[in-house]
Amino acid sequence: MSRLTRRLLVIGADAAGMSAASQARRRLGPDDLEIVAFDRGNFASYSACGIPFYVGGQVPDVESLVVRTPAVFRDKYSIDVRLGHEVVAVDLDRGAVLVHEAAGGAERWEGFDDLMVAAGAVPIRPPLPGADAGGVFGVQTLDDGVALRSYVVDRRPGRAVIVGGGYVGLEMAEALCALDVETHLVDAAEQPMSTLDPDMGALVAGALREFGTILHLGQQVRGFGTGADGCVVAVETSDGTIDAEVVVLGLGVKPNAALAEAAGVKIGPSGGIAVDRRMRTSAAGVWAAGDCAEKRHRVSDAPVAIALGTHANKEGRVAGVNLGGGYATFPGVIGTAVTKVGRLEVARTGLGEAEAAAAGFITEAVVSESTTRAGYYPGAAPITTKLVTERGTGRLLGGQIVGQEGAAKRIDAVALAVWNAMTVEELLGVDLSYAPPYSPVWDPVLSAARRAFEQAGG
Amino acid sequence: MSRLTRRLLVIGADAAGMSAASQARRRLGPDDLEIVAFDRGNFASYSACGIPFYVGGQVPDVESLVVRTPAVFRDKYSIDVRLGHEVVAVDLDRGAVLVHEAAGGAERWEGFDDLMVAAGAVPIRPPLPGADAGGVFGVQTLDDGVALRSYVVDRRPGRAVIVGGGYVGLEMAEALCALDVETHLVDAAEQPMSTLDPDMGALVAGALREFGTILHLGQQVRGFGTGADGCVVAVETSDGTIDAEVVVLGLGVKPNAALAEAAGVKIGPSGGIAVDRRMRTSAAGVWAAGDCAEKRHRVSDAPVAIALGTHANKEGRVAGVNLGGGYATFPGVIGTAVTKVGRLEVARTGLGEAEAAAAGFITEAVVSESTTRAGYYPGAAPITTKLVTERGTGRLLGGQIVGQEGAAKRIDAVALAVWNAMTVEELLGVDLSYAPPYSPVWDPVLSAARRAFEQAGG
Repeated sequence: MSRLTRRLLVIGADAAGMSAASQARRRLGPDDLEIVAFDRGNFASYSACGIPFYVGGQVPDVESLVVRTPAVFRDKYSIDVRLGHEVVAVDLDRGAVLVHEAAGGAERWEGFDDLMVAAGAVPIRPPLPGADAGGVFGVQTLDDGVALRSYVVDRRPGRAVIVGGGYVGLEMAEALCALDVETHLVDAAEQPMSTLDPDMGALVAGALREFGTILHLGQQVRGFGTGADGCVVAVETSDGTIDAEVVVLGLGVKPNAALAEAAGVKIGPSGGIAVDRRMRTSAAGVWAAGDCAEKRHRVSDAPVAIALGTHANKEGRVAGVNLGGGYATFPGVIGTAVTKVGRLEVARTGLGEAEAAAAGFITEAVVSESTTRAGYYPGAAPITTKLVTERGTGRLLGGQIVGQEGAAKRIDAVALAVWNAMTVEELLGVDLSYAPPYSPVWDPVLSAARRAFEQAGG
Repeated sequence: MSRLTRRLLVIGADAAGMSAASQARRRLGPDDLEIVAFDRGNFASYSACGIPFYVGGQVPDVESLVVRTPAVFRDKYSIDVRLGHEVVAVDLDRGAVLVHEAAGGAERWEGFDDLMVAAGAVPIRPPLPGADAGGVFGVQTLDDGVALRSYVVDRRPGRAVIVGGGYVGLEMAEALCALDVETHLVDAAEQPMSTLDPDMGALVAGALREFGTILHLGQQVRGFGTGADGCVVAVETSDGTIDAEVVVLGLGVKPNAALAEAAGVKIGPSGGIAVDRRMRTSAAGVWAAGDCAEKRHRVSDAPVAIALGTHANKEGRVAGVNLGGGYATFPGVIGTAVTKVGRLEVARTGLGEAEAAAAGFITEAVVSESTTRAGYYPGAAPITTKLVTERGTGRLLGGQIVGQEGAAKRIDAVALAVWNAMTVEELLGVDLSYAPPYSPVWDPVLSAARRAFEQAGG
């Protein structure tokens, strides 16, 4: 290494951190930039979104969730990934981080010129009695997933309780039902999946019940009962007691920003690390990307914290390009998401009715029923499309789709329309694809746009 | 009827004509507007795109292709649909059309205040010896489809030859293979589906062979041999003779504009009836929509004739709104299309490389391989995405997708990007949906956009 070699340290060898590291390496060779990534876990660069499918057994081995191993990073990218290494402190004045090594417990300071914070998210754990009992699992890291899978395979629990009906909660419900565990799901809201409007959430509730989930909606969790061995035996809710041999917390996550905050890096209103469009934090030479970083919502214009692999990858790429001396910007998010709930495909983008109202919009909404294929074509299945528009202008603010096979990815058309601030009148005229095996002649998205336009007097 | 009742005559009770009629009715009641639609065929308002699936037997009865029957139009919309009535002349000065009634052969003049021309398209029939022989079928109208299906079911031909490897040709190949007919396909080009670039067409050729089609590519058809009964027995090509017991012409269609042209209505360079954005022709009170009307391509800016149900429906709607005293405009097309070829889903939008060059663009192209789901998720299948961009600006000009289940409708995301004149750099940052059952973390479309951007030095 020459004396001019800069040193980039990466906190978190997740998708964001390793995307950034790889992009930086693409532009700067090892003589110009040394890259070391620390991760306290046992896996680098894996698909966190795949964890429920590993727990459920559809993905048979944990290795297939790993995109690239440390060996590949070392040999192909000259990036030094150190697993089992937790960064426990950051000293911005000294330009150094304190690293704690799991094996042996050694701690030492490592200096940096640039610091990439990709610390991800931490699951929200309610401050409830028994929340730390054995058998109560979060599913944020692949290590969490491995622990849960082992617990279920070893102990063969008869009953599981999932707390929280968000994406992870629903996917875990399906995974556990697939393992023949009697699965209960508790949610404080009246419908699961509060990122959907309640009318669309009701369709999701139906799908959950269809594959055997027992729903306890509108119930607050008060605590967890434990047995003699210290393991969970029951979930106490506002309505009573649900026996449980294993509990999965799906209460969402929050940005893992504590370390950065302690070091004096500015945190945004969403709780994520504040970044500019190049993914620079308030501290010189310190970058952030992925679940720990705040994002700007392009429709509401508000700062938001959304933990999702796509954002992590895109932000990591942007940070890495800039770290490598290039120029790239992250354009923000619009809250697009999709999930599978049994037979149903569930997707959303932009703002729901309540979110739009909170952002100051006065809205109109339309719910349109159609089919995934031409009505006469074998396999045509129902699809429900909801569009939320701004009153007066007809600007599309958001959309939600619930339907069977072929429904989910249609949200991308809505997302691109929201992204480009199109009105429903503009959208209904767009040349989308049509053939009977894939769509009615008015695609469900166009059909919904047309309804929204006509409902508004067009 | 009051003396103030206007009279709208519609030539062609197809999707365009009946969309226009229904929209006009939505705004004007029977006292204000009398509507009569003439169609020489035996079916109104049907899905022409469904014909191959009826011939192949996936759609068991012809009635399911009919969206609305004349009885429904009469009872619910007060629209008088007269099937078996062919308009054979238009006299613009008199404001009248000459109608020939199939049953009985009577002819009479019918006066109009407004005339909606929705005459559709006519199949291109090569001026070749034997092209009018028995057993040589076009598949443009539902009547054609019924005739072909009857011929195949009654005669049980052992060998079929399809002439032309466009959408209809490929769908008919699959339909006939499904009926256990040995099916040959002849095309003058080196790859089927000339609306795709040849490299993508090669993938389609593989899929055709997979379900049993025998391809004769790069061969010109010279004529058709007929037997003693006057029915076709062979197809003569530049390379030899192919025995045939039934022949299906899939050489494309052209706008059915002859009647309008004879009446003095202006025809555009594409051969379609020239219309303005409200679907008005050059003649006062005469409107056109659907396959017979010219469209503007938003990327090439050229006038084009594209026969497709989606355009027919949208243009019909626009014409009907305007006919009814409202205001609506048709925004043009970008050539989006999708089809199923055995296991493959094949889609395109915007301009291909040759089309873009013809329109004066200097282009770059990228072909990107990905999977329809996360690589580790069961059922992940290959998907090939090609993007064509303008050199320098990186503006997306077009895209083509060939892949398995879940591939086709992704073209809509590309279509919306082309529609909005986005660059690949803008596209790669868009918040499209992601979950392992539906997409890798970089959706194939985003992944291709990223490759295109990086290949251009970004």
